[in-house]
Amino acid sequence: MFKVTVIVKRRPKILDPQGKAVEQGAKLLGFNNVLDTRIGKYIEFKINTDSEDDATKEVKEFCEKLLSNPIMEDYEYRLERE
Amino acid sequence: MFKVTVIVKRRPKILDPQGKAVEQGAKLLGFNNVLDTRIGKYIEFKINTDSEDDATKEVKEFCEKLLSNPIMEDYEYRLERE
Repeated sequence: MFKVTVIVKRRPKILDPQGKAVEQGAKLLGFNNVLDTRIGKYIEFKINTDSEDDATKEVKEFCEKLLSNPIMEDYEYRLERE
Repeated sequence: MFKVTVIVKRRPKILDPQGKAVEQGAKLLGFNNVLDTRIGKYIEFKINTDSEDDATKEVKEFCEKLLSNPIMEDYEYRLERE
């Protein structure tokens, strides 16, 4: 069994309206030092296999097919054996 | 200047319908080893100050007032001086 965490972010050149909106909210609340806010997804799950190779393969495919949009997002993942 | 990353997750006992939906999608696509999927937010931003104490204070307040819902979510943050 592996515990997996994935972070999905928009590519740096792609606009992030949600980040902009949060930053405007921050300014309204008086957080004037907050800059360059960008919002992504954090996903955690388990992979029920004992082979690290199989787990890695399944995680990559899961990220590419379901968790991220490969046109505009990048992903990073980390596996940890349990 | 500090680079800050924040992860906001629902507390373990709180249901995560978005995670459940993604997991159902995973099963439909044939990822049968994926379990316990939970989805949170990943936020990155910069804090324009040189004092680590000020930065930490502002990050905590930003997390508590805007980025997370303290009733049902927990947050973790990491600061890195730039």
